[in-house]
Amino acid sequence: MKALFFDVFGTLVDFRTGVAREAESILGSAGHKLDWGAFADAWRKEYQPALEEVRAGRTAFRKLDMLHRENLDRILPRFGVSKLAEDSARNLNLAWHRLPAWPDVPGGLARLKRRFLLAPLSNGNISLMVDLARRNNFPWDAILGAEIAGDYKPKPRVYLTACEAFDLPPAECMLVAAHTNDLVAAAKCGLRTAHVARPNEHGPGIGEAAPEGPVDVAAIDLEDLAAKLGA
Amino acid sequence: MKALFFDVFGTLVDFRTGVAREAESILGSAGHKLDWGAFADAWRKEYQPALEEVRAGRTAFRKLDMLHRENLDRILPRFGVSKLAEDSARNLNLAWHRLPAWPDVPGGLARLKRRFLLAPLSNGNISLMVDLARRNNFPWDAILGAEIAGDYKPKPRVYLTACEAFDLPPAECMLVAAHTNDLVAAAKCGLRTAHVARPNEHGPGIGEAAPEGPVDVAAIDLEDLAAKLGA
Repeated sequence: MKALFFDVFGTLVDFRTGVAREAESILGSAGHKLDWGAFADAWRKEYQPALEEVRAGRTAFRKLDMLHRENLDRILPRFGVSKLAEDSARNLNLAWHRLPAWPDVPGGLARLKRRFLLAPLSNGNISLMVDLARRNNFPWDAILGAEIAGDYKPKPRVYLTACEAFDLPPAECMLVAAHTNDLVAAAKCGLRTAHVARPNEHGPGIGEAAPEGPVDVAAIDLEDLAAKLGA
Repeated sequence: MKALFFDVFGTLVDFRTGVAREAESILGSAGHKLDWGAFADAWRKEYQPALEEVRAGRTAFRKLDMLHRENLDRILPRFGVSKLAEDSARNLNLAWHRLPAWPDVPGGLARLKRRFLLAPLSNGNISLMVDLARRNNFPWDAILGAEIAGDYKPKPRVYLTACEAFDLPPAECMLVAAHTNDLVAAAKCGLRTAHVARPNEHGPGIGEAAPEGPVDVAAIDLEDLAAKLGA
């Protein structure tokens, strides 16, 4: 095995806490009071339906930043936010660029980097991945994923484009993710798979504490994964 | 200015010395004796004509590794090498993945990274850029360039795709290169430009010691560029 690819939202970064905190900072300072966790959940809930429009070919591929913005504009009225200044909306949309890593991630990636090529294989766009990497010290060799492939996971092309970029057969690549459905799709393309437990991804006790299907490796966190891969 | 993009062959790495040394190691150990510098020159001389076939649309886009291999197979007979084992040919083709950086590059990039986003904007493919970065400690934020754009410099799309990947207007991006023609093409796309002197790129005294046209910054090396950009 030569390369590890990583899902990012939920697997490496805590989007629920991060988005809730940014929303509180930006909307709260504009006088809004709402359930910040519910707001983060609602925003994320629009994510898969928006991706599905692209995957199904009903709309053209656009960067995730654009889909996030469309989804934001859709949910704001539901929370009683009707006239948000364009600057604030743009800033809030960049909350996804400023998410915090789970505590084990920087140390785990540093260990894994000594032994493997590392790249995100996320639906997030390149600039979003770059900003998260700068903020959290993710030591990527390259930024791969949806923007390079022009489509969204779990479409096979997204996984295969990442392998091809590194000139590697899928069997020499492993996807690391906290979501079994992502791993199942990667395995169908021939990649190896590692599940990382994120039991609090969607709030306390709401997340995959263990894989919900067959995977090659199941790890508690990235330090555990590094140990299990001999890194 | 937010991002610096870098030409790589000649600007960051000494391809002539590197290719000559690898050829001597691989072909020399197979009993061949030839002018290793002339061999490196001949291989590189096939480079632009091969790119031009792609740029002009006469052949489909293929990774630079594939063009390098076709060019290698074309020049070997000229140097009297007729029956090279496939393994050796493949290994020799990867000489481009193992090129040494000019001495000022790692230190210069480390300084520039504190202030700017950094990415290669090379005609080299992603895996080639990744291998050079691992070998020489290039601290890239992302790997941009020809493979992302599906075409070769100096086609405008290659420069513009890099800016778009970082969500930046061209005026907030700068191309750093040792070749005036590359910088002129980038300037036409709206990027800012920095020339780096590489007076020995093609052998002693054969290289651009100064820009041969208007540029925004002219630097002696990357340390000088960092100083001139306040990094």
